[in-house]
Parts: sequence; structure tokens; C-alpha cells
Amino acid sequence: MMDITLLGTGGMLPLPERSLTSLYVRCGAQALLIDCGEGTQTAIRRSGLRFKNIEGILITHFHADHISGLPGLLLTLGNEDRTGPLHMFGPAGLESTVTSLRAIVPELPYEIVYHEYDPETLNAAQFPLAGLEVTVFPVDHTIPCLGYRMELKRPGKFDARKAKALGIPQPLWSRLQKGESIDGYTPEDVLGAPRRGLSVLYATDTRPVPAIAEYGKEADLMILEGMYGEEEKQARAEYTHHMMMQEAAAIAAETGARRLWLTHYSPATSDPAEYEEALREIFPGTLAAADGESITLQFDKE
Amino acid sequence: MMDITLLGTGGMLPLPERSLTSLYVRCGAQALLIDCGEGTQTAIRRSGLRFKNIEGILITHFHADHISGLPGLLLTLGNEDRTGPLHMFGPAGLESTVTSLRAIVPELPYEIVYHEYDPETLNAAQFPLAGLEVTVFPVDHTIPCLGYRMELKRPGKFDARKAKALGIPQPLWSRLQKGESIDGYTPEDVLGAPRRGLSVLYATDTRPVPAIAEYGKEADLMILEGMYGEEEKQARAEYTHHMMMQEAAAIAAETGARRLWLTHYSPATSDPAEYEEALREIFPGTLAAADGESITLQFDKE
Repeated sequence: MMDITLLGTGGMLPLPERSLTSLYVRCGAQALLIDCGEGTQTAIRRSGLRFKNIEGILITHFHADHISGLPGLLLTLGNEDRTGPLHMFGPAGLESTVTSLRAIVPELPYEIVYHEYDPETLNAAQFPLAGLEVTVFPVDHTIPCLGYRMELKRPGKFDARKAKALGIPQPLWSRLQKGESIDGYTPEDVLGAPRRGLSVLYATDTRPVPAIAEYGKEADLMILEGMYGEEEKQARAEYTHHMMMQEAAAIAAETGARRLWLTHYSPATSDPAEYEEALREIFPGTLAAADGESITLQFDKE
Repeated sequence: MMDITLLGTGGMLPLPERSLTSLYVRCGAQALLIDCGEGTQTAIRRSGLRFKNIEGILITHFHADHISGLPGLLLTLGNEDRTGPLHMFGPAGLESTVTSLRAIVPELPYEIVYHEYDPETLNAAQFPLAGLEVTVFPVDHTIPCLGYRMELKRPGKFDARKAKALGIPQPLWSRLQKGESIDGYTPEDVLGAPRRGLSVLYATDTRPVPAIAEYGKEADLMILEGMYGEEEKQARAEYTHHMMMQEAAAIAAETGARRLWLTHYSPATSDPAEYEEALREIFPGTLAAADGESITLQFDKE
């Protein structure tokens, strides 16, 4: 099960009813955050989410609207008596950028562990975080920028008949089921083929690039920027390396995703929902998400 | 006339209904801002105020709750096509702190001019900004911290009889009235004694110090921190160099101020207004201000 909450849907600058871009992903008692624009802290409180659960923060790029809320959030994590390390992932230059921002929060009671990826040379990389497998890949913006895919894997079905036939003591079953090897037995001995897990793809700010469709293949949820909806903004989107709502919908249609949430709207777009009907002609599962949009993704019944 | 808007009243961390500390002071088409915590930009929009009017930003100290909204605000000032310089005033170290924060807004279309005051050696200093005379003085916090007084001066009454007697041509009258010397005539030739102007004092985060009462003497409005209202927090206020609501009210009573607004509440204080009745026993003009509190101060009728 994954709980996804879109904390903010604003691009460029915060508006009274639209915080800057940030996503909160929870898997049990563990959580991660993608981007941290101004207003993220307040949005976490408003959505009733917890700061303590946050194990790591993934940054897409260093434009202010994606990271301006970080110093305040780091301070709040400290005020919540955090002592365990906070993992941060982002483009090359992450540590130096965050260190600069920490001019106003020089003292924290926990360590920050930095994991940098250079979008210029990266093909894709994977790391575990908050119970999920995260894939990081480069996208195409005016400055180096990363996209992220989060997957909750699902093991095969436990075959009790096999376990009995092998004479595996029953107390070991649940550990084998969770993927542990024990007393010479391996999960493969008792589990069927891996089943469909859950996956969420997040990409903003970027032009459409093949990697988004590749890593978003059959995603349960794609979250893509919808900077502009007006056709006449196409040239501007190309010039500023942003994505049109229609381009986002076309990618979701191509990948066989189950749902698409749009985010990172231009401040000039006062009502993104007015584009929804037309966008659903391109991809029926399109939602012009608003701040606080949230969903619980569940494994398929099988 | 001075328009005063308390954009945020929160201390330490932003809450959904309480932004971090910031004050917007407008005098005609000119404005200044004191402090710029996270949420300041949104609060400016919510109050229907303008970014373009802001000529300068005064910073009290470098704790995150007083400056975390600055990088985003600087970016927004740039997006509003500002080209004229922005003046920044604050404790020694201002330029290096703001330069660090600008890691995420490296390019701006306007210049920032820094004016630093060292609270360790400063007695008091004055400078003109946004049509006001500003006095800056040191206060007593855990790190170097400044208080500010803003005064709108009011010239003496224009004496038309005197002007006629001196044979001053009528087209020059309004310029003399505004304080200009012209064609050998001086304002003193035609103006009575200076009249009571308007003054606002702003001090947070600090223990009560004599300078606050001194520069807040007969202020039209004092804006002081009311970090805690519970008596049992006195020791904590002393230890963390903050001010109790009761201490703020006592200062206002001592100075003969006309009004007191409390601000910079502890996040644990969910309803500052519950202390108002008791505080008005100390100083009747006390208001436990909330975000967006605003007033237009007018010259006395005379």
C-alpha cells in the first residue's frame, strides 16, 4: 500500500491557494518527500501528515520553487527531536546548495547524508528508500534535472503446500514470505512468481523525453507537470523546457499508466480543471490535481 | 498616512493559519518590509498588497523564521520586472547570509544594496526609506538582533499670511510646504512648529531592553513579540531571550504608546486572544494580532 499526497501544485511562485511543488509518499510508517518548495511544511500539517516519518528528500533540481522550503523544513525536523540521519538525493551540487541554504539553519541535531547524481552522465540509478525501490533518471530542463520512479515490490504468492512438502517449520514461513533466506531455505522455494507491485512516476520540470515513458510504463500513477494548457503556449514551453498539459496526457496514454495527475501549473493558470475534459480525450485517467490531492494505492486483488 | 499590515504572526515554524513573522509598511506608493519568514509572499498577495512598492527590506536577525521566505521573494521581485535597486538593512553578516541563500536565485535583474549594522557596537542609527525616517537599534536575543522604529514626520502648518507678507509667489507655496528651499525662501519662513507625526516601533525577538521603551515613546503603534502568555513560561522566555506577552504590555504602558500589537507567538499558543483581557489590565490598547491585521494611521486633526 502506498499513500500519495500532492502537497503543492504551483510552479514559479506560491499563491494563497496553491503552494509550490512537493509530493509526500508514505509506505507504512516510512515516507519520502520529492521537492520542497515554500509552503511544504504548512501543507504537511494541513494534510495531517507526519514529519517524523520522512526518511529522505529527493530534489529534482535547484530552481527556487522546488527547494525554497527546505531550510525551514530542516529546522522543523530538528525541532521534532530527530536524531537519525536524513538522506537527500538530487543532482550534482546538492550538498553545496543545501550547505549554502543552511546559512540560516547552521545547527541541526541530525546528520544529512547526500547522494548526488549527475544528470549529464547518468543513465539511470536505483536506491532503496522508505520501503520503496527508487529509480532516478535525467530529464530535460534549463538546468540539470532528475525524474523519479518509486516502486513498491510485491513478492509472489506463498505456496503453503510446497512449504509443507519441504518440511519447513511453520514459524519460518512469514520470514520467507517477506523475502528472507533462513536455515538453508530461500524465498524462491515457497513463493510463486513475483506479482504486479505498485509504481508512481514523478517528472517536472522537463520537456517530454523517452525516459519518462520508459520508467512510467504501466505506472499506477504518473505525476507530470502541466505548466501550460493553452495551445499558443507551446513555443514558450519548448523555450523554457517545460511541458504542456497535452504532452503530459499523451505520455500517460503511451505508457499504459492507470492515472495521471497534473501539477506545477503556471501562476497565470487560475483554473487547471478547465482543461480536464479535453485532456481526457487524450488520456481518460487525467486529473488536474489541486493542492492536497491524495490517493491510497492498493495491490491488485489476486 | 501610514498603512501597516502584519503579514505573519508566527514564531519558530509556520502553521496553516499562521505565517512566519513579517510586517508590511506602506507610505503612499512606497513600502518597506520588516523580516521575511516563509509564507511572506503568499501573505502579501492575500492582503492585496504590491511587491513593486517595496523599496527595502529590514531584517531583525538571521534565525530562519525571520528570513526563510527571502529567496522566493527576491525571485518574485525579479519576475515583476524590477530593475531598480533593493535596499536591505540588517545585522552585520547580512550580505554574506543573503548571498548564501541566493544559491537558489543566483540571477536577479536588479541590484541589492546592503546596509549592515553591528548590534554589538551600535547605539542607534537613522536612515531614510520609503518616505519614512527609520531608526535602528540593538535588542537582546540569543544572536545579534535589531529593532526598528519608523517615523513619518509632519511639517508645521503652512502660514498663508506670512507667505503673502513675504511676497512669495503662490506657485512656490506647495514646494515650500513639502520642505523644499526655493528662490531664497526656506520652509521655516512659512511653516509653524513641526507637528506630531506618526511612529511605529517593531521589536522581536528580544528580552525587554530600555531601548524599546525609549524609541517606542508615544508611538502610534508598538509591535512587540508575545512569545508566551503562560506565567510559568517566564524562565523559558528569559533563557531563550524572548518576551512574555505581559512584558510587552508593560513596555507599551510605560511608553505612552497608543496601541500595542502582539506578534511572534509560540506554535504551542493556539489562541493568543485568550490572553487579551488580562493584558488590557496592564495596557488597555493591547491587541493579540492575527495574520493580516491591518491599520491606517492618520495624522492627528489639527
